Amino acid sequence: MAAMLLVFVVARLLREVMERLKQPGIVGEILAGVVIGPHALGWVQSSETLTTLSELGVMFLLFRIGLEVRPSHLLSLGATAVSVAASGVVVSFGMGVGIALLFGQTLLQALFVGTAISATSVVITAEVLSSRGLLQERASQTILAAAVVDDVLGLVVLALVTNVARGSVNFLEIAFTALLAVAFVLLFAFWGHRAVRHVVPRVEASMRTAEAQFAISIALLFALSLLAVYAGVAAIIGAFLAGMALSETVDERVHIMTAGVSEFLVPFFLAGIGMSLDPAVFRNTSTVLLAGVLLVAALLAKLLGCGLGAWRLGRTDALRVGVGMAPRGEVGMVVAQIGRGLGIMPESIFAIVVFLSIATTMIAPPLIRLAFRGVESAKRP
Amino acid sequence: MAAMLLVFVVARLLREVMERLKQPGIVGEILAGVVIGPHALGWVQSSETLTTLSELGVMFLLFRIGLEVRPSHLLSLGATAVSVAASGVVVSFGMGVGIALLFGQTLLQALFVGTAISATSVVITAEVLSSRGLLQERASQTILAAAVVDDVLGLVVLALVTNVARGSVNFLEIAFTALLAVAFVLLFAFWGHRAVRHVVPRVEASMRTAEAQFAISIALLFALSLLAVYAGVAAIIGAFLAGMALSETVDERVHIMTAGVSEFLVPFFLAGIGMSLDPAVFRNTSTVLLAGVLLVAALLAKLLGCGLGAWRLGRTDALRVGVGMAPRGEVGMVVAQIGRGLGIMPESIFAIVVFLSIATTMIAPPLIRLAFRGVESAKRP
Repeated sequence: MAAMLLVFVVARLLREVMERLKQPGIVGEILAGVVIGPHALGWVQSSETLTTLSELGVMFLLFRIGLEVRPSHLLSLGATAVSVAASGVVVSFGMGVGIALLFGQTLLQALFVGTAISATSVVITAEVLSSRGLLQERASQTILAAAVVDDVLGLVVLALVTNVARGSVNFLEIAFTALLAVAFVLLFAFWGHRAVRHVVPRVEASMRTAEAQFAISIALLFALSLLAVYAGVAAIIGAFLAGMALSETVDERVHIMTAGVSEFLVPFFLAGIGMSLDPAVFRNTSTVLLAGVLLVAALLAKLLGCGLGAWRLGRTDALRVGVGMAPRGEVGMVVAQIGRGLGIMPESIFAIVVFLSIATTMIAPPLIRLAFRGVESAKRP
Repeated sequence: MAAMLLVFVVARLLREVMERLKQPGIVGEILAGVVIGPHALGWVQSSETLTTLSELGVMFLLFRIGLEVRPSHLLSLGATAVSVAASGVVVSFGMGVGIALLFGQTLLQALFVGTAISATSVVITAEVLSSRGLLQERASQTILAAAVVDDVLGLVVLALVTNVARGSVNFLEIAFTALLAVAFVLLFAFWGHRAVRHVVPRVEASMRTAEAQFAISIALLFALSLLAVYAGVAAIIGAFLAGMALSETVDERVHIMTAGVSEFLVPFFLAGIGMSLDPAVFRNTSTVLLAGVLLVAALLAKLLGCGLGAWRLGRTDALRVGVGMAPRGEVGMVVAQIGRGLGIMPESIFAIVVFLSIATTMIAPPLIRLAFRGVESAKRP
């Protein structure tokens, strides 16, 4: 109980401090874990209870992100979003893998580094744009749509890399598993919401208990998370797909109830990441060097990759899109945790991946403000 | 993951079945635990994860009940509610303790039996009355107010009995601990909402992070639960007081977000109760006899105790109040779990206490319908 109180309160307090410093809140929650965790103050040790809350936290985080994604909206935004996302992911992944290999990491470790820096955080981007009233700009709409495609691509890449990490060297088997994983993701991404739209209202109408829609949503969340594991992808991917499938069907009330669960649990996930981060690894010069190079690469990769993907929108908007796609966030954290869970990621790489998520997330907001300066000042009275 | 899916889905399904049979849903969720638990089908074994969810579930259940209780409303309903609640609790507690002693239980076990049958379940009562549109009747209003006082009294009795169970035979020490416990409860019950009304809006206004009110509520929930333990009462009593203190201050959004967490977690608590119930104890004749006698006593105690307390409302309304106060529910479950946790409650007594909660909860709704028959038919077109 005391540990839960400490983790929750300190995470929320440092989030508050970060937001007052005009920095993203999730950085504060991660730092809270670092500060009170076993590597620094040692006020809180990791325990079975905290692990359970952290695992449920990341599931609900991805579920909630999925709930904000309308598949039909996604499909209507079309080619630009897909090209921005795809070229951003490919360039980031390639640069991440290449640099990690150059610095003497194994292929598997390099693949995880590439995966971790490939996915943009849709939450951070959306938060920055919405708090400045810039959501209706063409560049913003493109960023949002692309960030979603990007999340999905990032999750597919994660699924593939995880399979490679788990798999034997039998390439046919790996290919089959990868195919199953991709088929699972595509199936639920494209047909999930249609099935849900037909089935859920009927099931709900035939149920007499209160809050039936929320209960169905939670059941679907658990069911798809479990199915995802059987299909060879991470549970959180099932959680994301469950959210996306439900996004167009469920009421506002279910959104708020889910927000309640996620606001309650997510601090345990983010602080948990921080607790498992050992700051001492940055005493090593080569680790710091690799982290620095990867940070520059991560920023350049999205600027070039996404900027090129958005070239048809003109130079100004291409630049805005490139900058807006820079922040990595939860997906990077999730990749770090999975890689660690598989036992293939040494402390230093884990710390670097977490550092990259934190650093890109902190650097991006001022850059976004800079890139959108013209629009913002034109709007001010 | 599979265990969580199973517990959640089976609990919600049996709740659905029960409600279709016009029985209370919580009975279905408890039965779900019995059916899939280790004593019957054995599909799910208890685990650290399920225990964590169950413990958080009961905390959020009491927190949410507290959120529905307006302290000012409670104070305005005055003397009748208090006399109904007090005489109902005293008569139930006395009959429970007396019968258990007669059947050869130890004093401590008898005290727990008395405690378990002393508190009316405000949730069940409110659900039945509201689903029949009877909430505005004078008897209903009295029942609701009395059920709340009753919940508080039940929790105070539980705090005292728990202290007796934990304490040494040093009566001075027990008296001091009891005083501390009662002081804690009274302090937060009467001044908590005033402090919250002054402090929370200011703290919230000075916070920049989103969902600040929900975060403050969760922090208060954890803080009071922890304080309650230090004050010598159960954590759930702190959770209830936190909810009651916040009830007049927080927005509808926080209510819905809390409902989300509680709808998600409570099935794990109720099914957990069922999982730990071994139906085999009812093969013993003397256990069945004790259960039967206690059931009759539990119904009579509230009918006489609460009916007498409401005598000034006239015979019809006194009868309605007496019947409406019959269902025991979550508080009984909580008492059962705490007594078991303290290691002073043998399997048979645990099973009887759970059985009494289930049985009174199932018997009450038809009796309530009968007692209110005149009003209901007068209202129908």
